[in-house]
Amino acid sequence: MSFVKRTIKCGELRRENIGQKVSLNGWVAVRRDLGGLIFIDLRDRWGIAQIVIHPEESPVLAERAKPIRSEFVMWATGTVRERESKNMKIPTGEVEVLLEDFGIINPSELPPFEILNDLDVNEELRLKYRYLDLRRPYLQEKFLIRNKLYQIVHKYFYENDFVEIETPVLMKSTPEGARDFLVPSRIHKGKFYALPQSPQIYKQILMVSGFDRYVQIVKCFRDEDLRSDRQPEFTQIDCEMSFVEQDDILTMFEGFLKLVWKDILNQDVQIPFQRMPYKEAMERYGSDKPDTRFGMEIETLNDLLTNSEFQVFSQTLADGGIIGGLKANGCGAYSRKQLDNLTEFAKKYGAKGLAYIKLNEGQISSPIAKFLSDTEMQSIIDKFDAKDGDLILIISDKWTRAYTILGALRLEIARLQGIFDAVKDKYNFLWVVDFPLFEYDEEDNRYVAMHHPFTSPKLEDLEILDENPGKARAIAHDIVLNGVEIGGGSVRIHDNAVQQKMFSLMSIGPEEAKDKFGHLLDALKYGAPPHGGIALGLDRMVMLLTGIDNIRDVIAFPKTTSGLSLMDNCPSAVDTKQLTELGVGVLQK
Amino acid sequence: MSFVKRTIKCGELRRENIGQKVSLNGWVAVRRDLGGLIFIDLRDRWGIAQIVIHPEESPVLAERAKPIRSEFVMWATGTVRERESKNMKIPTGEVEVLLEDFGIINPSELPPFEILNDLDVNEELRLKYRYLDLRRPYLQEKFLIRNKLYQIVHKYFYENDFVEIETPVLMKSTPEGARDFLVPSRIHKGKFYALPQSPQIYKQILMVSGFDRYVQIVKCFRDEDLRSDRQPEFTQIDCEMSFVEQDDILTMFEGFLKLVWKDILNQDVQIPFQRMPYKEAMERYGSDKPDTRFGMEIETLNDLLTNSEFQVFSQTLADGGIIGGLKANGCGAYSRKQLDNLTEFAKKYGAKGLAYIKLNEGQISSPIAKFLSDTEMQSIIDKFDAKDGDLILIISDKWTRAYTILGALRLEIARLQGIFDAVKDKYNFLWVVDFPLFEYDEEDNRYVAMHHPFTSPKLEDLEILDENPGKARAIAHDIVLNGVEIGGGSVRIHDNAVQQKMFSLMSIGPEEAKDKFGHLLDALKYGAPPHGGIALGLDRMVMLLTGIDNIRDVIAFPKTTSGLSLMDNCPSAVDTKQLTELGVGVLQK
Repeated sequence: MSFVKRTIKCGELRRENIGQKVSLNGWVAVRRDLGGLIFIDLRDRWGIAQIVIHPEESPVLAERAKPIRSEFVMWATGTVRERESKNMKIPTGEVEVLLEDFGIINPSELPPFEILNDLDVNEELRLKYRYLDLRRPYLQEKFLIRNKLYQIVHKYFYENDFVEIETPVLMKSTPEGARDFLVPSRIHKGKFYALPQSPQIYKQILMVSGFDRYVQIVKCFRDEDLRSDRQPEFTQIDCEMSFVEQDDILTMFEGFLKLVWKDILNQDVQIPFQRMPYKEAMERYGSDKPDTRFGMEIETLNDLLTNSEFQVFSQTLADGGIIGGLKANGCGAYSRKQLDNLTEFAKKYGAKGLAYIKLNEGQISSPIAKFLSDTEMQSIIDKFDAKDGDLILIISDKWTRAYTILGALRLEIARLQGIFDAVKDKYNFLWVVDFPLFEYDEEDNRYVAMHHPFTSPKLEDLEILDENPGKARAIAHDIVLNGVEIGGGSVRIHDNAVQQKMFSLMSIGPEEAKDKFGHLLDALKYGAPPHGGIALGLDRMVMLLTGIDNIRDVIAFPKTTSGLSLMDNCPSAVDTKQLTELGVGVLQK
Repeated sequence: MSFVKRTIKCGELRRENIGQKVSLNGWVAVRRDLGGLIFIDLRDRWGIAQIVIHPEESPVLAERAKPIRSEFVMWATGTVRERESKNMKIPTGEVEVLLEDFGIINPSELPPFEILNDLDVNEELRLKYRYLDLRRPYLQEKFLIRNKLYQIVHKYFYENDFVEIETPVLMKSTPEGARDFLVPSRIHKGKFYALPQSPQIYKQILMVSGFDRYVQIVKCFRDEDLRSDRQPEFTQIDCEMSFVEQDDILTMFEGFLKLVWKDILNQDVQIPFQRMPYKEAMERYGSDKPDTRFGMEIETLNDLLTNSEFQVFSQTLADGGIIGGLKANGCGAYSRKQLDNLTEFAKKYGAKGLAYIKLNEGQISSPIAKFLSDTEMQSIIDKFDAKDGDLILIISDKWTRAYTILGALRLEIARLQGIFDAVKDKYNFLWVVDFPLFEYDEEDNRYVAMHHPFTSPKLEDLEILDENPGKARAIAHDIVLNGVEIGGGSVRIHDNAVQQKMFSLMSIGPEEAKDKFGHLLDALKYGAPPHGGIALGLDRMVMLLTGIDNIRDVIAFPKTTSGLSLMDNCPSAVDTKQLTELGVGVLQK
């Protein structure tokens, strides 16, 4: 054998081990030669052990230790003793190992960057040398938390009678095909598999098969322009349940999330979570994923301004739009420049302008003051209970856009005023429910499903489906934490007639429906149970659990925003011969 | 709400529930109208509940129940009572539910086949209507066992300090690229990702990163001609460990397999498993995955025939080949036709002919008798301790081929003589170790790695690597159960110099090595720990655990042998527009 195997992990050394002879295996984190003493910090997944050599007492050992450098892999044998100067910041900090023998198992070249938690090199270099980057305890601990999350998923859902079932990775290209990754078939040339954007249809089919409850931690794929928080392959906790109503689903996942936050963060989350209809979320927070950790709620001012002579407002009201506002506490002294910045910010969300009322040093100033009566102005101030030093921001626009802009302004003000820092230890879970069933696609001039076409309408809205589909609500639910959507789902349609109706409302003809969803539609004919489910974004959950902003820090081997793997240089060119065998060719540019 | 939710599962009804009012949800398995009594068997994942209606006492209920047909989804409320005629074959067979109210939740069209365990329809129809096929309890229980296996994996490896880590599905095309599924990149037109044949390189890199122990249940992909026991996507239990020797790996997986067989089959498997060098496995069983549940071992006859004047034998010996044989107990009376069949069978494995010695009714007959001396003939019979009624089969060929043919004949005789039936309740686990490091590729005129190019040579064979690479053995291990290889692995090379040497022995130049494995070679320079691992075929394990021959019966949504999914009709044609966006085109045939 080429090395002496460890008898204990580096990170597990404790006071109780004092006097024991131990062997360690690990990486040299630091080697410090103080002349009279040589220290070697040996690192493994569990932590760091301090090894010490007294050159005067052990001159041969000290000589042999001279070649040791950072990131060398070594074994070390010695006796555990109490440290003279303890480091109470690390769990092994009370003890050290007096070296008796050691061997270099594998040397290391000088790494391109030091293995430090607090690393200041560009991300590209880190990704190219991902094997070194991942050696940083800071990053490793994210994957240990990720691992813990996997185990909670496995255990919780098994105990709740869910069956783990794998659905195919090579599947049929779906209607949202433009985002599919395609895989040419060698046997059936000219035909393609697609990688799943989600196992939605398969999990519904498993319910039709009678598996009753399904869970899978599953890779999904989306070939779209990547934003910094997106990856071409991402992981979902995908679940489906039979013979349930929405409330059963929400309760099941509240139990799960409560357990996760308890086991991983030791946080006691209150259940049931608040449930907020989409309409309320938009009207109060200007978002379908509101951050409810702080107030600063939106107020709708329509009632106060019904007789307004200000043309912008009266026109908005005549068009059925919304005049809404929010109060930014303590922003009454915002400068012209700061207000201009806010206006620019609002314009990015489609605002035509931004009205405001400043209450500063006993003065009320507003560019719209001259268009409003004193009563109107006062009624707005009263509505917000605004005090000196406050700022009121007002937007007048169509329903969705008005609230969306105000929602964005609310978050921007919170950022500017340091509110996020103040609430960063809070975990506010929230269900958003009662989403609209459809969105109207102005471009295609038709209704499209807001979630997906298998989402069930609310039973009480079934009758308005024909006359007023835009008003119908879905039995859909998104789970939101601190303003981040971590998952969503719905009760599905189990009635073939309702499913056909949905397609017809979305102008999807019988032929098209058969071609695209034929097997699910067929399945619905043979006894589909009532069912519904949810999919949680696992990567995003890990980000929230670890307080990390960069999704690439919670994925072991991530792609860049342009879909590259810098470590192994993919995607890459392949032989023409190989492509010919697959029956495809690369188009000339 | 559209249905009354269950208070208990159909399959959970027991004697203890007698007198209770219960509600059930499920599928109608059978409806039997006996005139004076109507029985409905209601099925869910847990089993079957018998529901009963007395038309005379409940005429309205009986009338309402008339439309009920097989596979309808319904809810039913009633009181549990003891059955008059019990069915002790099913766990719910002592009780029934006297129906008080019910509703049809979803009707079903007449299914294309009955939902029977013992179904006699062709597999194509089953796969097309997979959602109905999977409703069969016979098939469902395979997935419940598969689920149990997942959970044991999760638990065992977590408790043994393995970290579950996901490796990418979109990776770089590997050297065995011909078998890669490729995925065109939309952003980087003309370049391709590949789907992993295994996460081998990633898991080694995770060891270099210091994760110490890794586990993943992972989909792997191979685009090759499918045999009946292969699928284009298959599932592996993939593991890797650091700071270990081979024995540590074997011990870890013996513990795992023992646990699986205990928890799922209640079988006590003895550990440690037998460990057999490759050479011994070939010489005794003619296979690198021997079925050791029965004897019928091969004997090498070279020593008995050193002076043989039979030209076939003397030539074989002169060429360094093998004369080997096996004794088929009780086959001495095999007819000419049966022996011809065996000869044809042997020829499929490359035999030039098949010699035999029949001991039948006191006679010894053999086509080669005239070429052998009496002493030689007798020595062969003595070697096998052959008795009247036995048959000796003899093959003379090159080492590998001779043993391989004999190994195949051994299994064929076992099949013909019903030996497999006799041993079907045995579970013989076996490690095959000490594989050759290389195979010589006659076509390419070079050595290729028998396992893969990262497999470590045995330390004691390092010195013969240069002079005699063909003799060097690998620290590799296959786990074999009853003649089926269920997994394999090795200790990997952690020394960059050894890795370079391996490439040079395989005539892989530095440029090629860098291009193909550059990131792993780089990683080895920065302190790689000794490491090794294993990958188990999960699908095959489930087949062995459930006694199923057809791999498609243990995969929820399998492909046919030509890679088709009959349920959703994939692979399928896609829009030219979509392909153009990906920068590829379909070649004209």
